[in-house]
Amino acid sequence: MGKQEWGFQENHELHAAAAFTIRNILESIMGNIDEKRSGKPKIHLGHGDPSVYPCFRTSTSVEDALVESIRSAKFNCYPAGVGIDPARSAIAELLSKDLPYKIETDDVFLTAGGNHAIEILLTVLGRPGANILFPRPNYPVYEARARFSPLEVRHYDLLPEKGWEVDLDGVKALADSNTVAIVLINPGNPCGNVFTFDHMQKIAETAREIGMLIISDEVYAHQVFADKPFIPMGVLGDIAPVLTLGSLSKRWIVPGWRFGWIAITDPTSILQQTGVAGSLKSCLTISADPPTVIQGAIPHVIKNTPKSFFLNINKLLKEAADMFFEKIKEVPNVTCPHKPEGSMFAMVKLNIPAFEDVVDDTDFCTKLAKEECMVLFPGDAVCLKNWVRVSFATEPKVLDDAIERMKAFCMRHAKHM
Amino acid sequence: MGKQEWGFQENHELHAAAAFTIRNILESIMGNIDEKRSGKPKIHLGHGDPSVYPCFRTSTSVEDALVESIRSAKFNCYPAGVGIDPARSAIAELLSKDLPYKIETDDVFLTAGGNHAIEILLTVLGRPGANILFPRPNYPVYEARARFSPLEVRHYDLLPEKGWEVDLDGVKALADSNTVAIVLINPGNPCGNVFTFDHMQKIAETAREIGMLIISDEVYAHQVFADKPFIPMGVLGDIAPVLTLGSLSKRWIVPGWRFGWIAITDPTSILQQTGVAGSLKSCLTISADPPTVIQGAIPHVIKNTPKSFFLNINKLLKEAADMFFEKIKEVPNVTCPHKPEGSMFAMVKLNIPAFEDVVDDTDFCTKLAKEECMVLFPGDAVCLKNWVRVSFATEPKVLDDAIERMKAFCMRHAKHM
Repeated sequence: MGKQEWGFQENHELHAAAAFTIRNILESIMGNIDEKRSGKPKIHLGHGDPSVYPCFRTSTSVEDALVESIRSAKFNCYPAGVGIDPARSAIAELLSKDLPYKIETDDVFLTAGGNHAIEILLTVLGRPGANILFPRPNYPVYEARARFSPLEVRHYDLLPEKGWEVDLDGVKALADSNTVAIVLINPGNPCGNVFTFDHMQKIAETAREIGMLIISDEVYAHQVFADKPFIPMGVLGDIAPVLTLGSLSKRWIVPGWRFGWIAITDPTSILQQTGVAGSLKSCLTISADPPTVIQGAIPHVIKNTPKSFFLNINKLLKEAADMFFEKIKEVPNVTCPHKPEGSMFAMVKLNIPAFEDVVDDTDFCTKLAKEECMVLFPGDAVCLKNWVRVSFATEPKVLDDAIERMKAFCMRHAKHM
Repeated sequence: MGKQEWGFQENHELHAAAAFTIRNILESIMGNIDEKRSGKPKIHLGHGDPSVYPCFRTSTSVEDALVESIRSAKFNCYPAGVGIDPARSAIAELLSKDLPYKIETDDVFLTAGGNHAIEILLTVLGRPGANILFPRPNYPVYEARARFSPLEVRHYDLLPEKGWEVDLDGVKALADSNTVAIVLINPGNPCGNVFTFDHMQKIAETAREIGMLIISDEVYAHQVFADKPFIPMGVLGDIAPVLTLGSLSKRWIVPGWRFGWIAITDPTSILQQTGVAGSLKSCLTISADPPTVIQGAIPHVIKNTPKSFFLNINKLLKEAADMFFEKIKEVPNVTCPHKPEGSMFAMVKLNIPAFEDVVDDTDFCTKLAKEECMVLFPGDAVCLKNWVRVSFATEPKVLDDAIERMKAFCMRHAKHM
């Protein structure tokens, strides 16, 4: 038999999109780690997943809720595409507490995690000729998923010198009548900033002026530990319609449960009237679902997690942020321009010309992994070249060790004057 | 202020795709149900989800496995895009038992249910100019998801008079050098048929001749209860490469757990060499994941579910299929040409001209819902006009009642000669 001809082939578009994901970037950095050779335990500050540290273990009440859902045998069945009502309604009630109006059960759409919510939103809003505004720096999943959407991506700046506020003049210059939405991440990933009410009001007014909706990624909702309170963007939903994105992953420290939501926080019902709400429902009908058995646990997760759990997590994050911000000052040739106020991250700027043999942020992360057995996330992958994103959500001992290793690395690679 | 102009809009493509889903079709049929008015309890034979019936409750060992996974607190973290190795390896071992070669951990890709696996496969294989062969009748999710793929869909027939075998001459006539794959569903949904080894061999040889891969949807693997054994298509993977699709949903009766997989059953490594395997990995990197906490349960689910559980489920399905096939003969103006041998479904043909006032299958299902408070799935939605799909996976009492209702309905609507 001659050489067989096959009709199928490799999909290079998928490779290109996957290259933008946290997973693939971390995989390539981690490829340089060799615990045995380095004689040091690996330290992973590359992603926002502290669930491995005992002090960050989720609340027993969260585990109990899922066990109860399983044992009831009521949640082994297929869910509705938008999710089961008790879970939607528990989320609606939770979000309504922070809003001057009430969200209804039908305003909440359940997703298989926050990343899946991003996929859904970009699919719903995608149409040829339209564009969307992303922050720079950004959470990379937006960039990866946008490659599957006809939306043109335009980046506005977050300004480090203004505590990572939105560059509103830049937003106005970028937008036009085909701009469908602006993405905000608050509390910020990767910047660890928190927006003030005044600034949010200006953003909402700008959104209205342009005629775009606001995608408010609040996956780190209530994880704030400085002076600024967390304010959901939905509070300003009467100025411009807001789609709020949330998740169990960070606040309840169960990223592996893959449970998220999209909530319509739009008291003037523009998203209903324009058919965006109906399109969300259609998209979820043909899309992956969070398991019913997890949805069944949600009412108890929301109701039974004690306040003390959240207070303790925020206390741990605050202590870590404080320590990080103080100690990073001792590391030569890097600067953290803004002390983290929320989420689990800080952006650190590399003074590349001051290094002897570090050419950029990816080179920095690669060599750091090789020599110090530790993982940071390169800024290039969050669209900010020659910065690095650091997750400080670890045990204090680990964080301390990590900064010591960074210091040793930076001293070793500094240019000798 | 004048009328506000918004840049976003409704997504009609999503509505069109969602219209093809089981969910939307069932929702529209169910809209005609009124338990109160009819005075009868609703009977749902419209989908393959017997988890609501106590006799079909999943094994305690399955529930225990998930409880253990939760309590260990080891599976709250993010999973790898392709899934965690212990779960992949447990599936690899399970599938290898039925194959003349060994599947490796890396050959198994975990998905958020069988439907998600379909989404992944069609995304990976999609390229402009290519086409794919679907069965007629088909499982509707393939049709819905194909709308998001550049693939041109071509339908080959399953032949009721030959026990729903593939029309191989039709396949040869449809295919060309741009045909990437043929989808087979065995045991059959919606037909309840099971392929023989001889027939499968002919399919594999045809696939090789054409140069296409085989997508073998084995979500109902081992759920057979007539003379024909279940044979996985991977057995013939040396003739043409096979991507095998599986799920926990049906065999373990937990469709709400949303856990499935794609396995490369391709002993000559063509899918590795052509880059299809790598494209699967890239696609899963940017896609939704099954929760880590469920993945963590899989090794114990696979290892600890007693044989007696599967034997009992197949016994229940056999009894239901027997009863259904006997009793449906008493229903006027419908025929079931082939006794179900596997899965949970049978296709029933409506003799439309013999009805007084039933114009087609959708009209049949709509009026049946209204008058008899019961749900069947219209054939049009599985691409076979004027048939209906019946799920017989219910308690015997319920099934008996359902057929009585169908009988009363068909007698009432029969043309008076």
